[in-house]
Amino acid sequence: MTSPFQHGGKCRIGILGAAGIAKKNARAIILGGCSLAAVASRSLEKSQSWCEEVLPPLLGSESDRVTRYGSYDELLEDASVDAVYVPLPTSLHLEWVLKCIEKGKHVLLEKPCALQLSDLETMASAAQTAGLVLMDGVMFMHHDRLVDVDRTLRGAYSQFGHVTRVTTGFSFSGGKEFFASNIRASKSGDPLGCLGDLGWYCIRIGCFAFGFDRWPHSVRCRCGAQTADGVPLDASAEVFWEREGEEPGSAVTSPSSGSAAQTGGGGVPQPPLCLSFHCSFLHPFRQWVEICGSSGKTLTIPDFVISKSSSPGAAVYSLKTHGTSGPLVDYDCRVVESEETVQAGFCVQEAKMFERFASLIAHKMAFGGGGWGPSPVHSHSHVATVSQGNAGPSLSSGLPSSSPHASATLGASSTGVGGVTPGGLPTSQMQVAMGAPDFWPRVSLLTQAIVDRCAESAKKGGVTVPLGPRASWMDARKGEKEE
Amino acid sequence: MTSPFQHGGKCRIGILGAAGIAKKNARAIILGGCSLAAVASRSLEKSQSWCEEVLPPLLGSESDRVTRYGSYDELLEDASVDAVYVPLPTSLHLEWVLKCIEKGKHVLLEKPCALQLSDLETMASAAQTAGLVLMDGVMFMHHDRLVDVDRTLRGAYSQFGHVTRVTTGFSFSGGKEFFASNIRASKSGDPLGCLGDLGWYCIRIGCFAFGFDRWPHSVRCRCGAQTADGVPLDASAEVFWEREGEEPGSAVTSPSSGSAAQTGGGGVPQPPLCLSFHCSFLHPFRQWVEICGSSGKTLTIPDFVISKSSSPGAAVYSLKTHGTSGPLVDYDCRVVESEETVQAGFCVQEAKMFERFASLIAHKMAFGGGGWGPSPVHSHSHVATVSQGNAGPSLSSGLPSSSPHASATLGASSTGVGGVTPGGLPTSQMQVAMGAPDFWPRVSLLTQAIVDRCAESAKKGGVTVPLGPRASWMDARKGEKEE
Repeated sequence: MTSPFQHGGKCRIGILGAAGIAKKNARAIILGGCSLAAVASRSLEKSQSWCEEVLPPLLGSESDRVTRYGSYDELLEDASVDAVYVPLPTSLHLEWVLKCIEKGKHVLLEKPCALQLSDLETMASAAQTAGLVLMDGVMFMHHDRLVDVDRTLRGAYSQFGHVTRVTTGFSFSGGKEFFASNIRASKSGDPLGCLGDLGWYCIRIGCFAFGFDRWPHSVRCRCGAQTADGVPLDASAEVFWEREGEEPGSAVTSPSSGSAAQTGGGGVPQPPLCLSFHCSFLHPFRQWVEICGSSGKTLTIPDFVISKSSSPGAAVYSLKTHGTSGPLVDYDCRVVESEETVQAGFCVQEAKMFERFASLIAHKMAFGGGGWGPSPVHSHSHVATVSQGNAGPSLSSGLPSSSPHASATLGASSTGVGGVTPGGLPTSQMQVAMGAPDFWPRVSLLTQAIVDRCAESAKKGGVTVPLGPRASWMDARKGEKEE
Repeated sequence: MTSPFQHGGKCRIGILGAAGIAKKNARAIILGGCSLAAVASRSLEKSQSWCEEVLPPLLGSESDRVTRYGSYDELLEDASVDAVYVPLPTSLHLEWVLKCIEKGKHVLLEKPCALQLSDLETMASAAQTAGLVLMDGVMFMHHDRLVDVDRTLRGAYSQFGHVTRVTTGFSFSGGKEFFASNIRASKSGDPLGCLGDLGWYCIRIGCFAFGFDRWPHSVRCRCGAQTADGVPLDASAEVFWEREGEEPGSAVTSPSSGSAAQTGGGGVPQPPLCLSFHCSFLHPFRQWVEICGSSGKTLTIPDFVISKSSSPGAAVYSLKTHGTSGPLVDYDCRVVESEETVQAGFCVQEAKMFERFASLIAHKMAFGGGGWGPSPVHSHSHVATVSQGNAGPSLSSGLPSSSPHASATLGASSTGVGGVTPGGLPTSQMQVAMGAPDFWPRVSLLTQAIVDRCAESAKKGGVTVPLGPRASWMDARKGEKEE
């Protein structure tokens, strides 16, 4: 397959806003087999100085080939730029993403995507109409480990049962400088505060665990601390999903009133499906998630956001197993359980993110703007109904050649062709879903919908807030209108 | 020191009710250097059959020396019994504990202690008046590891800062038989359900972490599932403490309304002090706790309730460290942190529990019923004010000789004399506190007060429920009346 990019080359990416996080992602753009084409800041001095700091270690003498712009508009006028990475403050997202789309640029957007769901719906709709890719910057989505975890949770050979509960904590301790100047704790920059910045990841991993095709029914969120002007700095929340097959309006839809337990097979009550998360700028750095299943297993990822596999050594997760009945301890007071630590391989998730982004752009270029891939159905009840060979292009297709740096670092792609990975494992439903360009705005919209309701619940003192009817974009298919 | 027990022998313990948990604790009584004197059930057949199953592997030909009774009253009339272990259903606790006390028996009471706080206040007051020990059956309190963790959190050389947040999950998956017959999910046996059975431990470890001398101001609890007659089967809750030095009525006392963050030193906002717990009969077996500190550290115990150290191998906890400012990841996307796994030694916590119980009884016998030890003050702000030499008798005093079985299994006691352990470490404040008989009813009362308010909050749909003014028994000292 010939590269659809200009001159048969790499996907050329521009960075809109010389933010701190862009330093990490400038490296990831290059490792991911893309070309860093241009950097824009609000002044030429700023973009020059950013480039002089960041580029030489990455590009050496090639650094000068990266164009520096003194305004965002100039970068968007650059016809050699295929796509734009947008790490601007959230309050600027709507304006600049729409401008990117207007200028025909694909967009990789830092989270939180928008100040509110309606803004993101506007962006997603504009991108769809223009046939452009819109993906958010949740890098852990692209770690090979997540595909491995997906297979463990609901692959063909899974013994996990269905996911019953997700507990997660993501926090760091913002120092004096952070609270004095960082946009993430500022009303004008990012009024969703820790909910948008950290809760976004917690909600995303919860949606992953319960299934991206599923719509939660309500949230409860308590704000533990906020700035004087109301930006959340510490928040804990619970998000509730229906059990499969249950209709809205059944007893379980009112979790806060302590509904009577539904009884499943064998007279055993069923637990509510709940994501419980804590996100905070006021606690030590933590980034763990624990996923409970219905067959006595728990799966834990100690570092789900910023994988330590970026250091030498493989990314891991652990799986504990108990029986669903029988003693927890034997007669000698020994705990009866088995624990397995799974090595999920080495992966630079940020590089994988840009690699996939470029691949989706290539797909859009090759198949046209209206092309929709398969829907992101992968909950266990639907496993049998989705053909595994129905994926979009594999992760590496559309990229004529990886950069030497990327291939040396990333090794072989984990995704082969024909729905089977080189290792012989069947492609996971997650991999299928992620190969479809429409998957990405959809998971962003779902995340934003939940963040919004969490913020609303927190403002109302922690009351239960319903999500309302399932959004139409959850089920949009090829050829359907989204609104 | 001569044994204060009858004939200079061991503490003679009777078991009231031939429950399943009593099997484990019959063994612990013997390992703990006590004598299993008698077992009572509601019929002689039941106690006979229980003894025939449980005793021979423990006592061999000595099994016949254990008296079997066909009623609880008969056991209480047995003058050779010093103390009683009560694993009866919670609904029977008030009646039988008062009868035990009336008959002059010290009591080790399974949790939850009571149906409601006022019942436990009645029991504690009666025990105090009679000069008897009342201790609950939370075995993890007696694991050497907890003293080690206490030292890490607030010992003389601690770098943990103050505890800012505790997150814990304790659950197991009750099978068909459990829900059909177990008293722990029954309105008549244990109407507090998972809150009393599992939440008791979660609340206890939270009180331990924040300091047993501190009074929380409010709780929020959501019941995720309950039986048709309202017994909680799944619950999540948050318990809030004041930051030290803050008065009730300040902004932070209304966590649910999203109070403005208090600003500590250096312009950095302060987080709310919160215990977040999940307890459930409807999820896989989990028993972890994570404690966050103000200096960038987190301490995690993977098995805080039923220590795996009961299997060969040492009990562990882990300590992660980050700076409170500076980058979380370095330029190469590597996570900047250190993690240390601490080996806390081998310990049979159930045996230690009975060893300490007997030691406290010996103390009461030696120093009289009105004797009060030092108050259980051990929060970090008070470290300097409590003399470390002021402990009650050391854990092993009053026990003239360990049984051969116990000494072979338990090894040397971790607690020496004079406030310094054999290993040379200073006695922790926790050890000091635990040597005082009045410590034990106090921590039970504190736990019960929080459980009660959690149940109330759950019934009210998860609203924030205040704990009210600090209870007078929190500060009772020698010679003071409790009520």
